[in-house]
Amino acid sequence: MELTVLGCNSALPTSYRNPSAQILTVSGRTFLIDCGEGTQFQLRKLHINFMRIDYIFISHIHGDHIFGLLGLISTMSLLNRSTPLEIFADAAYEDLFNRQIAFFCENLTFPIIYHPLAVDKPHVILNIKGVQVQTVPLVHRVPTNGFIFREQAKAPNIRKSAICKYGLSIADIVSIKDGKPYFDSVTGEEVDRSELVIEAEEPKSYAYISDTAYLPSIVEQVKGVSLLYHEATFADDNAELAGKTYHSTAKQAATIARDAGVGKLLIGHYSSRYKETDVLEQEAQSVFQDTTAVYDGYSLVF
Amino acid sequence: MELTVLGCNSALPTSYRNPSAQILTVSGRTFLIDCGEGTQFQLRKLHINFMRIDYIFISHIHGDHIFGLLGLISTMSLLNRSTPLEIFADAAYEDLFNRQIAFFCENLTFPIIYHPLAVDKPHVILNIKGVQVQTVPLVHRVPTNGFIFREQAKAPNIRKSAICKYGLSIADIVSIKDGKPYFDSVTGEEVDRSELVIEAEEPKSYAYISDTAYLPSIVEQVKGVSLLYHEATFADDNAELAGKTYHSTAKQAATIARDAGVGKLLIGHYSSRYKETDVLEQEAQSVFQDTTAVYDGYSLVF
Repeated sequence: MELTVLGCNSALPTSYRNPSAQILTVSGRTFLIDCGEGTQFQLRKLHINFMRIDYIFISHIHGDHIFGLLGLISTMSLLNRSTPLEIFADAAYEDLFNRQIAFFCENLTFPIIYHPLAVDKPHVILNIKGVQVQTVPLVHRVPTNGFIFREQAKAPNIRKSAICKYGLSIADIVSIKDGKPYFDSVTGEEVDRSELVIEAEEPKSYAYISDTAYLPSIVEQVKGVSLLYHEATFADDNAELAGKTYHSTAKQAATIARDAGVGKLLIGHYSSRYKETDVLEQEAQSVFQDTTAVYDGYSLVF
Repeated sequence: MELTVLGCNSALPTSYRNPSAQILTVSGRTFLIDCGEGTQFQLRKLHINFMRIDYIFISHIHGDHIFGLLGLISTMSLLNRSTPLEIFADAAYEDLFNRQIAFFCENLTFPIIYHPLAVDKPHVILNIKGVQVQTVPLVHRVPTNGFIFREQAKAPNIRKSAICKYGLSIADIVSIKDGKPYFDSVTGEEVDRSELVIEAEEPKSYAYISDTAYLPSIVEQVKGVSLLYHEATFADDNAELAGKTYHSTAKQAATIARDAGVGKLLIGHYSSRYKETDVLEQEAQSVFQDTTAVYDGYSLVF
C-alpha cells in the first residue's frame, strides 16, 4: 500500500496547509479519501494522475472534507473521462449531490455511481479483487464514517525446488496454494509446508479515522491494522475544546493506536492554531512511540 | 481603486495558476469578483482580510468562477461573521445556492442577500455611496455578465484663499461645490471657477470582462474606462478554438481596449496550454500598447 497526504488541516483554512484529502493505492487501485477544497490542485502539484481515481470515500459532509469534489469531477469531465466513478458518502447528501452535478456538470462524460452510506454500524462497502473496504462509524457533529482498507491475503509462491523434487502437477500446485497438505507420492509422508512454499507477505491494512470525538469503542475494529491515521485536531491543553467540538487530541489518537496495537500511527487534521505540529507529535509519541505528524505531500509505502 | 488578482487561469486547472477571482477596493469598500475553487486560500496567502468583503459578483456558473463560494462562506461563518453578505449571480443558481447553504452551512452566523442577475441587457445592480456597479451582458456557453465598477464623481475642494477673499458662507460653498456659478458680492461679476475650487480627481472606473466570445458590441459600454480586464484565453493561432468555445484571443481583447479607448488593459483567464503568458501579452500589445498579462497576486492601484 502507498499513502499520500494531500491535505491535513482542519476546517479553518491556513495559508500553509490544505484541508483533508488522501490518496491510497492498494493492489494497483487508486482511492481518494475525502476531498477538501483544492484537492484537484494538490493532485496536480504532487503529479498524481487523478484520472486513475475510480473510488472516492467521503467521511462526512463538512466543507473541509468535501468542497473539492465538484471541481475534481468537473475537471475529470473536461478531460473526457469515460470510466465510471464510484462515490461513497453520506446518504443524506445524495439528493443535493445529484442536483449539483445536474446544474454544474451538464454533459458529464462518465457515469457516477453514488453509494449512500449509513453510520449505524460497520459495513463492508467495497469488495473487489485485492481489497476490501469497511466503514468505521464515528462520533462527530454530523454523521461520520472512518474507513478501513484491507488487502486480501495473497496466495503463497510455490518453491521451484519443490516442483522439481516432487514433480508437482498443476492440480498439486493449486491444492498447496490453497493451504492443503501435500504428501510425498513415494514415501506417503506429509511434506513440511516450508519446503513447498514461500509464504506471501502478510496483507496490509489502513484505517482512516477523521473526524471524531475520542472513541475507545473503535479499538476492536482497528485492532492490528498496519497503519492508522487518526485525527489529532488539538494538543492536550485543549482537551476540553476537543470534547466540545467532537474532535480528538494527539494523546487520545495515540491511546487508540496503543490499545489497538497498530503497526504505526499517523496524526493530522490539525487546528489552524498549530502552525508547527511538533507538540502534537511529541504528545502522541509519549503514548505511542511510532507516531508521525503528517504534512501536505507526506508519502509512505507500507 | 485597487485591484488584486487572486487567480487568472481558465477552467482546466494547473499547478501554477488559480482559477478566476479578483479583489477590487473602491472608496474603502472591498468587492470580490468571481470565486473559483481555492479563493479563500489565495486570500489568506495574500493577507487580504476577507471578512471585509461585503459584496460578491459572480460572472457565470462555470466551476472555475464559482466553486470557491461555499468554502468562503463556510469560513466566514466559522469566524462568526455577522455583517450581511450580498451576492450577485445568475438567477438560475439561486435555488441550488439556497439548498447548498441550508445543507452545508447550518447555523450560518450572518444573513446572505442573493441578487439574481439577468443577462438580457445592462443593468445597474448596485448604487451605494461612492460606487455604482453595472452589468455587461456577454456571450458565452452559459448566461454570463461582465461588470463595470464606477467611482462616483467627487465634489471639488473649495480654495481657502477664496473663502477669505470673498467671505464665502456655508450656503455659498454648498452651491459652488454643486457646480453653480458664484458672483462677487462687490463687483457683481462671475468669479472664475478655477479661483474658487480645486477640482477633484476624475472618478475611476474598472470593467471586468470574463468569459466571452469576441464581442465588439461591448465597446460602447466600456468606452473610456480607466482599467479594462478582458479575458484572453487563447493566442491568435487558436482563434478558431476561441470562437468554438466562446472565448477570446489576446488580440481580440486588445481590439476591444483600443476601440473603447480605455486607460489600460489587463488580460487573463489563460488556457492551461500557456504556462508562460508572454506570447499573449505581446500579441495584445501589438494592438494596444498599454497591456499587462496579469498573474496570481498581481496588484495595481489606479
